[in-house]
Amino acid sequence: MVSLSQLMENEVFMAFASYTTIVLSKMMFMSTATAFYRLTRKVFANPEDCAGFGKGENAKKYLRTDDRVERVRRAHLNDLENIVPFLGIGLLYSLSGPDLSTAILHFRLFVGARIYHTIAYLTPLPQPNRILAFFIGYGVTFSMAYRLLKSNLYL
Amino acid sequence: MVSLSQLMENEVFMAFASYTTIVLSKMMFMSTATAFYRLTRKVFANPEDCAGFGKGENAKKYLRTDDRVERVRRAHLNDLENIVPFLGIGLLYSLSGPDLSTAILHFRLFVGARIYHTIAYLTPLPQPNRILAFFIGYGVTFSMAYRLLKSNLYL
Amino acid sequence: MVSLSQLMENEVFMAFASYTTIVLSKMMFMSTATAFYRLTRKVFANPEDCAGFGKGENAKKYLRTDDRVERVRRAHLNDLENIVPFLGIGLLYSLSGPDLSTAILHFRLFVGARIYHTIAYLTPLPQPNRILAFFIGYGVTFSMAYRLLKSNLYL
Repeated sequence: MVSLSQLMENEVFMAFASYTTIVLSKMMFMSTATAFYRLTRKVFANPEDCAGFGKGENAKKYLRTDDRVERVRRAHLNDLENIVPFLGIGLLYSLSGPDLSTAILHFRLFVGARIYHTIAYLTPLPQPNRILAFFIGYGVTFSMAYRLLKSNLYL
Repeated sequence: MVSLSQLMENEVFMAFASYTTIVLSKMMFMSTATAFYRLTRKVFANPEDCAGFGKGENAKKYLRTDDRVERVRRAHLNDLENIVPFLGIGLLYSLSGPDLSTAILHFRLFVGARIYHTIAYLTPLPQPNRILAFFIGYGVTFSMAYRLLKSNLYL
Repeated sequence: MVSLSQLMENEVFMAFASYTTIVLSKMMFMSTATAFYRLTRKVFANPEDCAGFGKGENAKKYLRTDDRVERVRRAHLNDLENIVPFLGIGLLYSLSGPDLSTAILHFRLFVGARIYHTIAYLTPLPQPNRILAFFIGYGVTFSMAYRLLKSNLYL
């Protein structure tokens, strides 16, 4: 019988596992950032969340939107929209037997670009910082998709 | 040649497959919940969706937002934000050869916490029910990420 | 040692890899569509994005929402909500040793339904075009989840 741990003896797969874990952990940090701004700015989406701040009409004034909170939420959604394709395409690409140094270059560029995207979005840095970070991550994912389809197309 | 079905002879991987399928099916149920509230409350986001309720200005009054529908949509988005990291990190963790009982404890806690999160969000239950459910799922995912990086870091 | 490339000798897995890469690339196209409508209609969510169109109050008028942009964003979010379960359940289903022609039928129906969903959402086509496309994709994913749990349940 084949042990699954052999998957983890493959260097490309180990690298994919490490970079993916880092970028997903970074994405999870966005939830904490949203919670932090909601609590410090007293901006809530649900009546039960601000029940501790007062009763009835008094609590309702905390049910509002705030520029800072909406910014973090947009950054979080942009992460989801871009990390989900990386997760799927990157996993399949890693299993298709790519060259190790090429694969690691893809993973590093993607993770670096997404971390820079978050910094550019939350600071915020002037454009084109954020749009460049977005397009680097986007290009890396398409490059993996292209290599995968070129060598393994089966429809 | 190695048969892929050997992956499914690994108990950790089989457990991951079962719990993941359950939690993803639960997430898909949120789409049906949104559709249910949209139809029973006649609250729509697209003009073509309420064309059957009248013509022109008469139909436009159904293009609105509703507290109940927005609540389900927030619960759905929160699911996405938390189940995507579980999917990626959990898959890689399952392949890294963890102890079976430790792995199953992680999966059970996560799936239980996310189901409780949905109940707490949709009822709604008073806080800190929902926030606790959120943090249990969050902690489980970070625990798997930590174990994965500790034993398999390759950058 | 077992080479990972043997995974890619499995026809079901190769087919899953191809269809998934296509449907994830289609989802990524939604980001470009949003960017296209934001630029051509001058509708932005962040002050730094429209800094090039003028200073101070002059730029602020571009911070607004637009029906067309919101429609693309809803289509994108619906993609995320449906493609994430397909990614997870489809991967596990592919590894569970299904019949090749059954598996390919599932993948083709899902990818076709999601492409048609996007066309129906963006045109927009009258209902029930979009709702039918949604339910075909939804049914395919549940069918894979059912087959997976029936043969591999391990709790």
